[in-house]
Amino acid sequence: MADIAALATTLDGIELSTDRALLRQKSRDFYWYSPILKAQLDGKAAELFVRPRDEAEVLRILAAARTARVPVTVRGGGTGNYGQCVPMEGGIVLDMTAMTAPIGITDGVVEVEAGAKMIDLDLWARERGWELKLWPSTKRTATIGGFVAGGGAGVGGIHHGTMRERGNFCGARIATMTDPPCILDLEGIAANPVNRTYGTTGVLTRIRVPLTPAQDWRDVAIAFPDFVQASRFALEFSFADGIPKKMCGVFDSQLPPFFRGLADAVPAGHALALVMVAPGALLALRELAAEHGGSIVAMQSTVEAERDGDATPFYEYCWNHTTLQVLKKDRGVTYLQCRFPFEDTLAAVEAVRIPFRDEVWMHTECVRFGGRLTMSALPVIRWTNAERLAEIMATFEAQGIGIANPHVLTIEEGSNYRRVPGDQLGFKQRTDPLGLLNPGKMRDFTPVDVPGEAA
Amino acid sequence: MADIAALATTLDGIELSTDRALLRQKSRDFYWYSPILKAQLDGKAAELFVRPRDEAEVLRILAAARTARVPVTVRGGGTGNYGQCVPMEGGIVLDMTAMTAPIGITDGVVEVEAGAKMIDLDLWARERGWELKLWPSTKRTATIGGFVAGGGAGVGGIHHGTMRERGNFCGARIATMTDPPCILDLEGIAANPVNRTYGTTGVLTRIRVPLTPAQDWRDVAIAFPDFVQASRFALEFSFADGIPKKMCGVFDSQLPPFFRGLADAVPAGHALALVMVAPGALLALRELAAEHGGSIVAMQSTVEAERDGDATPFYEYCWNHTTLQVLKKDRGVTYLQCRFPFEDTLAAVEAVRIPFRDEVWMHTECVRFGGRLTMSALPVIRWTNAERLAEIMATFEAQGIGIANPHVLTIEEGSNYRRVPGDQLGFKQRTDPLGLLNPGKMRDFTPVDVPGEAA
Repeated sequence: MADIAALATTLDGIELSTDRALLRQKSRDFYWYSPILKAQLDGKAAELFVRPRDEAEVLRILAAARTARVPVTVRGGGTGNYGQCVPMEGGIVLDMTAMTAPIGITDGVVEVEAGAKMIDLDLWARERGWELKLWPSTKRTATIGGFVAGGGAGVGGIHHGTMRERGNFCGARIATMTDPPCILDLEGIAANPVNRTYGTTGVLTRIRVPLTPAQDWRDVAIAFPDFVQASRFALEFSFADGIPKKMCGVFDSQLPPFFRGLADAVPAGHALALVMVAPGALLALRELAAEHGGSIVAMQSTVEAERDGDATPFYEYCWNHTTLQVLKKDRGVTYLQCRFPFEDTLAAVEAVRIPFRDEVWMHTECVRFGGRLTMSALPVIRWTNAERLAEIMATFEAQGIGIANPHVLTIEEGSNYRRVPGDQLGFKQRTDPLGLLNPGKMRDFTPVDVPGEAA
Repeated sequence: MADIAALATTLDGIELSTDRALLRQKSRDFYWYSPILKAQLDGKAAELFVRPRDEAEVLRILAAARTARVPVTVRGGGTGNYGQCVPMEGGIVLDMTAMTAPIGITDGVVEVEAGAKMIDLDLWARERGWELKLWPSTKRTATIGGFVAGGGAGVGGIHHGTMRERGNFCGARIATMTDPPCILDLEGIAANPVNRTYGTTGVLTRIRVPLTPAQDWRDVAIAFPDFVQASRFALEFSFADGIPKKMCGVFDSQLPPFFRGLADAVPAGHALALVMVAPGALLALRELAAEHGGSIVAMQSTVEAERDGDATPFYEYCWNHTTLQVLKKDRGVTYLQCRFPFEDTLAAVEAVRIPFRDEVWMHTECVRFGGRLTMSALPVIRWTNAERLAEIMATFEAQGIGIANPHVLTIEEGSNYRRVPGDQLGFKQRTDPLGLLNPGKMRDFTPVDVPGEAA
């Protein structure tokens, strides 16, 4: 603690705090979805909160931390689910939310400071005719830097894939934990080592991501008598290349009652599909829904709902928000993340939904990986204990279903199909040889023996 | 001929002609790509040319033709390749090119008169922030009505599929050959019976198609030492969901020397890929091309090339234009249309390219069908005789490659994987019971026994 106090004095002029309540708050994310992570992470906290205004301040913070051998854990909106921004060894929590300026749009690629909230960035882009390709269900609070560092999947994935697909992440500026710390500008695939590495390989200060021309998306809720009909609809909808779309989630009948703004509209016992489509495709959507026995029960403009603090864009029932909507009323659940096979997708879903139906409430999201469509899932799971969860995961895997385990802390353990290509480990050895950036999150890293330095 | 002269006198005020040279010209399309169709169709001609200005004139023409039992063959730009607008039994050729007015854009869906040239429609939409999802390589001369009636595949298919995909064709107004002729407004799947039916099921007067937000596409030509490298690049490019794209064609090394504006840029013996990408994806494209041994040899703005009468947008080397570029210098060739399997696509291409290499110059186009990507092909083929062509087609089919035969006249024979869902035959029985619309093109149709009328 003495080190921290001394260190703080060298950061004159930079926003900082040692307030215990603030440190507790800024050392957390949504890891508590997982009882396993909760047991591991509750109580972990940084010792110093710092909030830089620009790259120069970031570099000063890193230089001071390096000199003092104090770890630095960077955070954006803190909307991750795997403890990505929980400081495992105390030290500094580096809050990026004061660095929010959009730099500009060139050829449809936006450059922006890493702490910009995604909703602000999207609305700013929209005023210029563009929108984000991808955003998380936490768009209202998540930062663009956190989205890149934390996983980069969600709304838009049905069309654009995830942030790991070639072309979806154009580049970044990062601050390194080298001696001295410096700014690197990484472009194209050279930026992969900072993509989904939880801030272990550098502090993202600016992000460049491609935009897509803005569309006036419509949120549409469609009720179906059963889950299989809803799923068949969802797959045909997802494969319909003539229908511009941004999202398609399917929810088994246990889930809609937890969706505050929709519960009354969905008949009891019905499954639900939530989609975002371009207005010109509403006719095709109506026809397709009717062919599968679906009824449209609610519709709204996505952007109008976003701009209205009292409204709920339907994506806030989707992706990781589904579990959150249940947790608001019932703290006895947790979740999984998985991906079904590309062929016979629905059969694989049913193979795990039916036997576990009382315990696993199925929630699928249609998404592209490597140019091919399938369903991923974030089912809500009644929590018993870690052994039972492992048993469920093993059964899923035995059915050929990929698991990206959200109950583990490290990049490597959680990756599976979400791994980004590139030599993240080798990159960290160069940008953070002492291992001071978010220690404990890159499992395979060990501090490098830097000549002339004791790590 | 007496009937025709009498009929013409009833069409007072409508543009018409019996000029033999004009009739010959307006009774043809690009069927001469096929020596087989050329032998069948040369000399076929209408007896009366009419060019209506509005739906009222269309209805007057159809009423007069019906009364006189004179066939009516509708045409747009005459850019088809299968004799779709060749009048098999003389009569009237109904030229739609005077009906070109855009009606408006609602929720991203444009309604336009059927005779509008696609390039004009696209540029009109572009001024309003939109563009066509799909267009043929003949965009400079083709009409939107002809594109819907004639096949609806081409540029944009790598992203949006073909015109037969749900959502890509929103509706149409048609004039029927009923007693009396009338206008029907068809919406959504109800419009499928006029999609790719060569004007046999009604005269398209207005078309509604969805637009997509305009992008500033770049034409990029990439040379590769060999065809397999070019194809591997093309497939990876096509599957890269993070790269917004409108086209990707691959040409074996025999073909680039026929591409006037590109021949000098492509090293001898090199294969070529021609792509259209959004500017924000140029970095990802460069990286991907380099990984596959490709060199960018030419680049231009697609829209600027379109607007410059002396320039050639790269799509004018692609799709059906590839064969045309060769035919300009060498009339001894013809072509095929085929679709490779979704799995092991390149292996299937190679299985026919290698054995036939001297005779079949491979040209593939990446395209989506039903939400899945594959390569279609329009290879250029050294013409020997019909038996040899049949032998080549049989070999392709034995390899699991679908053939949409471009050497046949009827909708049914040419359809294969291009068939549009819907009851086209039943629809024609209602809208053209006497079979006066483009007779000879819907093979399975026989005139309906209309009470009180002798057909």
